[in-house]
Amino acid sequence: MSIQETGTARPAGRPRSEKAEKAIIEATLDLIGEGMGVSELTIEAIASRAGVGKTTIYRRWSNKEDLVVDALATLKAPLPTLTGTSVRDDLISLVDAMRKETGEPRGRCVMNIAMSEADRYPRLMERFIKRAVEPRREAMRAVIERGIATGELRPDLDVDMSQALISGAMLWHTKWGPAGELPADLAQRVVDAVLAGLAP
Amino acid sequence: MSIQETGTARPAGRPRSEKAEKAIIEATLDLIGEGMGVSELTIEAIASRAGVGKTTIYRRWSNKEDLVVDALATLKAPLPTLTGTSVRDDLISLVDAMRKETGEPRGRCVMNIAMSEADRYPRLMERFIKRAVEPRREAMRAVIERGIATGELRPDLDVDMSQALISGAMLWHTKWGPAGELPADLAQRVVDAVLAGLAP
Repeated sequence: MSIQETGTARPAGRPRSEKAEKAIIEATLDLIGEGMGVSELTIEAIASRAGVGKTTIYRRWSNKEDLVVDALATLKAPLPTLTGTSVRDDLISLVDAMRKETGEPRGRCVMNIAMSEADRYPRLMERFIKRAVEPRREAMRAVIERGIATGELRPDLDVDMSQALISGAMLWHTKWGPAGELPADLAQRVVDAVLAGLAP
Repeated sequence: MSIQETGTARPAGRPRSEKAEKAIIEATLDLIGEGMGVSELTIEAIASRAGVGKTTIYRRWSNKEDLVVDALATLKAPLPTLTGTSVRDDLISLVDAMRKETGEPRGRCVMNIAMSEADRYPRLMERFIKRAVEPRREAMRAVIERGIATGELRPDLDVDMSQALISGAMLWHTKWGPAGELPADLAQRVVDAVLAGLAP
């Protein structure tokens, strides 16, 4: 993926423009969080909310879609550092990062709205998945493959389905679980339940 | 829950009004599927799309919210008949019903939009969950509890977490899996993966 494609190019060491950039990202998330759809969102509205000129935005992002992808990506928690001591521990770290990023109410709300735009903005969603979802998916896949190799996991595992079980259980709690903060031990409980399975 | 609350009251044996009712439900889903948010949706627009008068709608639904809840509920597949021969078979039937209801593209699209409105219309979503989600959740809970009792499942299972694993894996495939039709054997693969777990 080239720098142009991801829209993350930034000349190093420009603190003033970094401050403006943060305000622009915040303004974009605020407006989406208030229920403004991607189609209604304008560079004008973002500039006005952020207290910057439109040219400041265009200096950094060539279009609205690039900006929205970057703004949504900031809602994802950073990939955790994996200790590599046990597959169980690393899976818990990965799932706990998912838990943390849904903790903030705005994050949840914006993510819901973004998801509902997937059908209207398939290219935007595809880029968001590439930029923010796939690195996490790759990290989990690597841990599962390591577990198969070390014998910590079953040798005949379907890696994709294993990911669906782990991430899906977490997704379920975000979507359908009791409202409010997700419990602190949820990641551990999810991973242990998936490891053990339901059969005796 | 009283009949008034669910908005499902209907005098028996009125075929003509049933046809109008179907057209009204279809019109509502069409408009939501085209991207119209619940706030933008009006009884006027629905009546015009359905080719009926507004009074025909008000005869059946006292407000827009009741109509939207009923319309969304029609997208859920009917609860499958469970044979009760094995817990595995019954779980597969339940998961396969979830697969079928996401098969239709409009169903997927409308459901995505409905989910994104949850924050703006918490009461609507709460009623939709009561009406369409909870009966399915109860059916799965009963099957899991039966499995614990018969020894087909582990005696120490957390029933809620078990549901999260099964339904979550399916939800994951709907949200993040490859686009297009879900494979016909997905329900069986999900259930077998959850039963077996990842540990050797």
